[in-house]
Amino acid sequence: MPTLRLPGLTDVHVHLREPGYERKEDFFTGTVAALAGGITTVLDMPNTQPPTSTPEHFREKAALAAQKIVCDLGLYIGATTTWGDAYLPVAAQACGLKIYVSETFGSLRIEDLALMHRFFRSWSETADLLGYRSSEIPHGIGPVAVHAEELMLPVCVELADLYDVPLHVVHVSRRSEVELLVRAKERGRRVTFEATPHHLFLSQADLPRLGALGDMRPKLGTPDDVAALWQHLDAIDVFATDHAPHTLADKGVTAPAESPPPGVPGVETMLPLLLTAVDEGRLSVEDIIARCVIAPRRIFGLPEQPDTYVEVDIDTRFELTNSAVRSKCGWTPFAGRTVIGRVERVVMRGKAALEGGRVVASPGEGVLLFQDRPSG
Amino acid sequence: MPTLRLPGLTDVHVHLREPGYERKEDFFTGTVAALAGGITTVLDMPNTQPPTSTPEHFREKAALAAQKIVCDLGLYIGATTTWGDAYLPVAAQACGLKIYVSETFGSLRIEDLALMHRFFRSWSETADLLGYRSSEIPHGIGPVAVHAEELMLPVCVELADLYDVPLHVVHVSRRSEVELLVRAKERGRRVTFEATPHHLFLSQADLPRLGALGDMRPKLGTPDDVAALWQHLDAIDVFATDHAPHTLADKGVTAPAESPPPGVPGVETMLPLLLTAVDEGRLSVEDIIARCVIAPRRIFGLPEQPDTYVEVDIDTRFELTNSAVRSKCGWTPFAGRTVIGRVERVVMRGKAALEGGRVVASPGEGVLLFQDRPSG
Repeated sequence: MPTLRLPGLTDVHVHLREPGYERKEDFFTGTVAALAGGITTVLDMPNTQPPTSTPEHFREKAALAAQKIVCDLGLYIGATTTWGDAYLPVAAQACGLKIYVSETFGSLRIEDLALMHRFFRSWSETADLLGYRSSEIPHGIGPVAVHAEELMLPVCVELADLYDVPLHVVHVSRRSEVELLVRAKERGRRVTFEATPHHLFLSQADLPRLGALGDMRPKLGTPDDVAALWQHLDAIDVFATDHAPHTLADKGVTAPAESPPPGVPGVETMLPLLLTAVDEGRLSVEDIIARCVIAPRRIFGLPEQPDTYVEVDIDTRFELTNSAVRSKCGWTPFAGRTVIGRVERVVMRGKAALEGGRVVASPGEGVLLFQDRPSG
Repeated sequence: MPTLRLPGLTDVHVHLREPGYERKEDFFTGTVAALAGGITTVLDMPNTQPPTSTPEHFREKAALAAQKIVCDLGLYIGATTTWGDAYLPVAAQACGLKIYVSETFGSLRIEDLALMHRFFRSWSETADLLGYRSSEIPHGIGPVAVHAEELMLPVCVELADLYDVPLHVVHVSRRSEVELLVRAKERGRRVTFEATPHHLFLSQADLPRLGALGDMRPKLGTPDDVAALWQHLDAIDVFATDHAPHTLADKGVTAPAESPPPGVPGVETMLPLLLTAVDEGRLSVEDIIARCVIAPRRIFGLPEQPDTYVEVDIDTRFELTNSAVRSKCGWTPFAGRTVIGRVERVVMRGKAALEGGRVVASPGEGVLLFQDRPSG
């Protein structure tokens, strides 16, 4: 059995749902699922309940996470209409600031120019206070990450540039958006962006089959949108899952649901999907390492993980199934797909964390990132 | 009677309504009203019926205008979802390209990133073709002018910068927008913007009194929005009227109207309102000349008007009234206001065009601008 050894992957975009939605996922099950997918660092989004938008809520969430995580984890703080930029005192302890400009799950959407202006300006001022400008890698403060579809994308690129704030655009899915970002990069904008496996490997053509299980934000693209992502692969900085677990009951599959929430899980299936694309000649292993290890480290100023690696069987084909899913949600939109790339072993800091497919790390063995950064 | 002699003013933003809405205004009545307000050049907007969005419609409109105008006039072309950038062959004969990103009268609103991206990219490519880049004053092609409120403003600033297209933002009205533009200018963006007399001299506090006659787009601001305009006066490049005549019947005043269209007239009242502000010490005559003569010439590459000037009585106070209005609409939102600055005489190219308050120029004596620019 040929085994591929990779550095532990980072997934810069997950929703571990705690606190508030523990029936969907929690810090333990979510990080177990990550390890099962060869991921040793996850960055967790702030649209939990309560939203991670004040220092108090951030600290409560950090305390919860520290007890339960089996891989390393950073926490985003989130901009809200209600709380404004109340998060600033813990800016340095977060992996970045998330702003929801476009439709999403939860209630964090921002539509107001004055407020958006303030978020970028005060993030920039905080970066100055923390001496961020003096460092090439942002060890002082993370980027502003945005869910910004269609015309909301140039809004964020402009505001970030006006305040010299590094911008990371999450789950880019449309040709129009990729083409705008390619131009912005040509013009020297400090912008990075991610693409998800579901936007790379699924399209609207899969919707009749998937139903509610194919619904997420941004929605699945047209085949031309998917082609645009592959065409501009060089411009895509990061592959990230937007792991957004919802139970089958929430999704209206095992019980009636009036308006099933958008979102699909992803941490367990990303690496097999990417390695299968390598097998098909659409991608190289270097492409994966660049986008799941090196770029996340650079963009988010992540510390190195010494003696941390993943061993993957790249010979045996297997079928992705709902029953094999470790995430509390218990399903995957890729069920039925035959892939390679089963994760056999994960070693973190010299110690086995997953062995023979079983997680052996104990809750709390993961490191909560950025807690030692000076908060200014 | 002390008389002030000023250069002929330019109003870079008028809606003369022809073709399609001649009951509201036409090229003759609109330019007569302009002369009565001391304005010797107007730039006319494309949301007529049909919209000025194809070479054919542009040429038809130009032919209509050439026969009727009593002051000089430039025509905008307009971007539409239907016609895309079909206007490009007459780009050089237009004073600029107008894009309606935010709500307005008519049906030109654009909400699609791919289309917006294309408008800026193809305008930039046309500018390159016409050798625009080599000229400091844009004699080859005009700017892109946008009605862009709230978050649509950074969209346009970003796209213009990505394609190095000069951007002119029309009728800026909110504190949030002014503050964004001030920052954009500090960061070296090629952006200019205008403020209207109604946003400078009226606010939401006037709405109970004005009713439908105080409704326009952008809507009247809060007193704080008005204060922001005055506070950032130095950043305002241009005063322009957004002269948008509608009959009193259309407005629902003399007849019931289900949804009265937004818009107010302005060419006859701008100069008296500004000179009254000078009298009150809020403005200088140089401020007016900078914003109504010099900046319009620079931004739009307007030719000089030799031997052209306006004589204004700055001694006698008079009341603005509906009955004195020359515009076909027959009303002004400033009726009842006491001002100074009655225009007594306008001379264009050495010849009287308005004398003792009466227009003596003949239809067609105005010059249709930009018709001799090379179209590449």
